[in-house]
Amino acid sequence: MDKIRAAVVGYGNIGKYVVESLIDAPDFEITGIVRRNTTEIPSRLKGFNVVNSVSQLKDTDVALLCTPTRSVEQFAMECLSLGISTVDSYDIHGGIVALRRSLDEAAKRHHAVSIISAGWDPGSDSVIRALMEAMAPKGITYTNFGPGMSMGHTVAVKAIDGVKSALSMTIPTGTGVHRRMVYIELKDGYDFEQVAQAIKADDYFAHDETHVFQVESVEALKDMGHGVLMERKGVSGNTQNQLFKFDMRINNPALTAQVMVGCARAAVKQKPGAYTLVEIPVIDLLPGDREKWIKKLV
Amino acid sequence: MDKIRAAVVGYGNIGKYVVESLIDAPDFEITGIVRRNTTEIPSRLKGFNVVNSVSQLKDTDVALLCTPTRSVEQFAMECLSLGISTVDSYDIHGGIVALRRSLDEAAKRHHAVSIISAGWDPGSDSVIRALMEAMAPKGITYTNFGPGMSMGHTVAVKAIDGVKSALSMTIPTGTGVHRRMVYIELKDGYDFEQVAQAIKADDYFAHDETHVFQVESVEALKDMGHGVLMERKGVSGNTQNQLFKFDMRINNPALTAQVMVGCARAAVKQKPGAYTLVEIPVIDLLPGDREKWIKKLV
Repeated sequence: MDKIRAAVVGYGNIGKYVVESLIDAPDFEITGIVRRNTTEIPSRLKGFNVVNSVSQLKDTDVALLCTPTRSVEQFAMECLSLGISTVDSYDIHGGIVALRRSLDEAAKRHHAVSIISAGWDPGSDSVIRALMEAMAPKGITYTNFGPGMSMGHTVAVKAIDGVKSALSMTIPTGTGVHRRMVYIELKDGYDFEQVAQAIKADDYFAHDETHVFQVESVEALKDMGHGVLMERKGVSGNTQNQLFKFDMRINNPALTAQVMVGCARAAVKQKPGAYTLVEIPVIDLLPGDREKWIKKLV
Repeated sequence: MDKIRAAVVGYGNIGKYVVESLIDAPDFEITGIVRRNTTEIPSRLKGFNVVNSVSQLKDTDVALLCTPTRSVEQFAMECLSLGISTVDSYDIHGGIVALRRSLDEAAKRHHAVSIISAGWDPGSDSVIRALMEAMAPKGITYTNFGPGMSMGHTVAVKAIDGVKSALSMTIPTGTGVHRRMVYIELKDGYDFEQVAQAIKADDYFAHDETHVFQVESVEALKDMGHGVLMERKGVSGNTQNQLFKFDMRINNPALTAQVMVGCARAAVKQKPGAYTLVEIPVIDLLPGDREKWIKKLV
């Protein structure tokens, strides 16, 4: 079997886990790692081809974009223009339709595939939400996140004047409502109460129940564990009270990375264009023979 | 929007719920109901075109096969040979690969689509099992059924000498192990203990913990409620202890019917051939505009 030739663009939190998952997958080889800094190479990357640009890598089928979400489109465009398919975990829900349109056009023009928002939410959660909607077309689905660290909210706290370091935890209180537990280290010369008020007034927090705490070390509180509970009560045909629940507790970047690797595999099986995870047959995320999986899983 | 023209083949337990779901769907019209008996028509079918054979119906896009599982292939072949796509809820796990091969060949020959095993297990459960496998490639998934009535086991009990009427309930005891609770009405002149022993020795029950009870009325115990709990503990990349759980409590035939209707919608969007549910993009089960669903669900 010819292996899928994959490049990893970005070697931050997600990139590290993507490399681990690719090494563990039976059907991939890594053509190289793309990062800004190619002079100081982390010891874990010894033996890999570390370059500045995906264009320096040979015969890459698919690039896994592990860059900040806001630079996904730019990197995807660069790869697609070289005929290299892409997978990203773009996570701004409101921007997905626009990103899909833009990358769909580019992907088709260059006969490549782009799978976007391929993490767990958006991503695998989206598949389950769509399936629950199909199983009971009338009803309400609640997505309850956490307990776990919110990257977006943590970045928002760090931007507030007087905050030295921060961690914002998302706590589910049911029916899709969340509490924010914010832990900060204070800069010298700032008043905690004033900073706490500024955090609570920020648009990221103003609409949720928010508690702010001053701590000695934010680093000591950090863990990458996260979770979600999705619940739907709905109607199939005329039949009420159909109940569905999906619950997971996971290492956040490890799951994102694993979903991205599945989608890199799926990318080589789709027709040119851009796709979200709900538009891809789930079996395409799995390696090897299709009938083997049908026998095992169906 | 042109409506999808659907025929319902068989009007038993599932067929009744399929008709309800089709009436409720915004994008279907019913071309007719196919059943053996076309002289005595149930009052709920007044106003429908009730015929003996799908060949008597005009311009049908897709037939929903609500026949016993063992006659699915024969009815599917008849529809496909007329260029009519099919959806069934064939539920013998060991026969799925063979059925898919046989109907794939026929579907391609007649430029039609056949979606097989489109219920909840096999069916929607299969999609979630495949997704969990992709999210954590190493690990074990346990499928725990029930509490709920097992059709297959109930039929097996009824075939035992001395049994007048029967109900076999499946009770989950964890890690995919099930207890069988069997309720029977006894025929006159039979000894309960002997019949109970015969049930426990039957191949359907010999490998499970089985309890048999004599009751006055099996009918009084029947409900169509069922459920499943699927659990996976696995590894994403090198990261252990990723925990996934899917839990549902549902009306069994109502959910089967709703999944079939979603698949009838998906059938008109696939290329000719036979598919299981894991081979179809989940979004294809939903009606109307794709971008609207991406915005809502992804």
